[in-house]
Amino acid sequence: MCELFAMSAREPATVNISLEEFAAHGGLRGPHGDGWGIAFYDGRAAHLIREPEPASYSDWIPFVEHHHLRGRIVISHIRRASRGAVNLANTHPFSRELGGRLHVFAHNGMLENIDASHGKALGRFRPIGDTDSELAFCALLARLTPLWLAPSPPSSADRLTVISAFARELRALGPANFLYSDGDLLFAHADRRKQRDGTLRPPGLYQLARSCSTHPHGFDAPGLKVASTATTQQVTLFASVPLTAEDWTPLEQGKIVTVQAGTVI
Amino acid sequence: MCELFAMSAREPATVNISLEEFAAHGGLRGPHGDGWGIAFYDGRAAHLIREPEPASYSDWIPFVEHHHLRGRIVISHIRRASRGAVNLANTHPFSRELGGRLHVFAHNGMLENIDASHGKALGRFRPIGDTDSELAFCALLARLTPLWLAPSPPSSADRLTVISAFARELRALGPANFLYSDGDLLFAHADRRKQRDGTLRPPGLYQLARSCSTHPHGFDAPGLKVASTATTQQVTLFASVPLTAEDWTPLEQGKIVTVQAGTVI
Repeated sequence: MCELFAMSAREPATVNISLEEFAAHGGLRGPHGDGWGIAFYDGRAAHLIREPEPASYSDWIPFVEHHHLRGRIVISHIRRASRGAVNLANTHPFSRELGGRLHVFAHNGMLENIDASHGKALGRFRPIGDTDSELAFCALLARLTPLWLAPSPPSSADRLTVISAFARELRALGPANFLYSDGDLLFAHADRRKQRDGTLRPPGLYQLARSCSTHPHGFDAPGLKVASTATTQQVTLFASVPLTAEDWTPLEQGKIVTVQAGTVI
Repeated sequence: MCELFAMSAREPATVNISLEEFAAHGGLRGPHGDGWGIAFYDGRAAHLIREPEPASYSDWIPFVEHHHLRGRIVISHIRRASRGAVNLANTHPFSRELGGRLHVFAHNGMLENIDASHGKALGRFRPIGDTDSELAFCALLARLTPLWLAPSPPSSADRLTVISAFARELRALGPANFLYSDGDLLFAHADRRKQRDGTLRPPGLYQLARSCSTHPHGFDAPGLKVASTATTQQVTLFASVPLTAEDWTPLEQGKIVTVQAGTVI
């Protein structure tokens, strides 16, 4: 199965060692060799780097780490193709502009018959590739369009209402772990996931929150380094599997966690 | 003024030395230090790398060259900010999905009062940043939306009709040199441009076409290297100023050149 990773932080931060660890899951240690991608938000825009090749052998990963791309919101994904060819168009995260913001989406799971259930309700969005995941993203954005094209930006509560209802529909189609951001809020939806023993069960995502007011250079744990020059930092992380030896919290099936600037709201 | 560059090729190719030359225009030799970006199409999707910093000092440029990103269509831009802050959202090329394809746009010039003339006719597209160029792109896509959401893909002629009429409107607002692609066709629109002597006059773009059936490794000229493993290649290039000593053709004001797979149609 695919691997998901996301960060929301109070101050812009670089994510380093976790990328390396994440890349290792992408082929050297995990069966996820069909592509990888990472989005770093910069305001309402984002850098998006994707490659339809194993992350483990990519020279982008060390470059991205060296280049110190910083963001308050980061979403990353390692792919094992279940539906759709191995190519750039099918590589997560997917992105679209809506309401003057780049929206970013990555999914782990398999949504059976989503074409039949949601393929006619895509608004003006169309998948570029042919994955169930991108189609789900287009359908989600179609639902959110009235909120974002309204004269004033939608409240967090209004956004969550739409996303929760949509996530419920997706869970009926198959495993629907997803990470979604509009550049302001990060939404993490946990479902069930094919575990290491081969069974399909929760947790679909783990969560880790850390705050820091004494270490100006951020966090530096084995397997996970979040670097920041801010003196006060608050970070919330999500991942398919714990990336460090720390006490990651497994999320129950159907749970949606909403994070703004590193703090769960 | 900004620098534009584009390539359309029959077979996927990497653009190398021209990038270096282009980067030199971006700060070391030219006054274009406010950002740069490049899009490489891969099917209906594209890699998009942008940075709101001078290209000349970027370690992305040698990395992109080393990484050998290949594409049949490449669009690149170096920015000197005229309107809008120096940040990622304001960095060309801009991109949007329409009709299941990524559309990419880069502009050189200054479109006076485009908010008043086109700001209410953006369809469901909204600028992420605050440049005249991105607003023009959104307005162009709003015009093209009926074509691309129709049951079958639009003809080249239908697309050109919309783009020509739109370009005419832009020219009335100010210098409107632009490069635009839907992943299938590349459209280059030439207007006037602030020349080296400070005067505003055509040409706004130069064109260079080259074909090759004897050099399997592509073209390799001082200042411009287009590498390809194809034995038969056809390439058409556009740039704000000639990038090599070859005989680039200056384009007359108001001219739109449409290229498909390296061949002008």
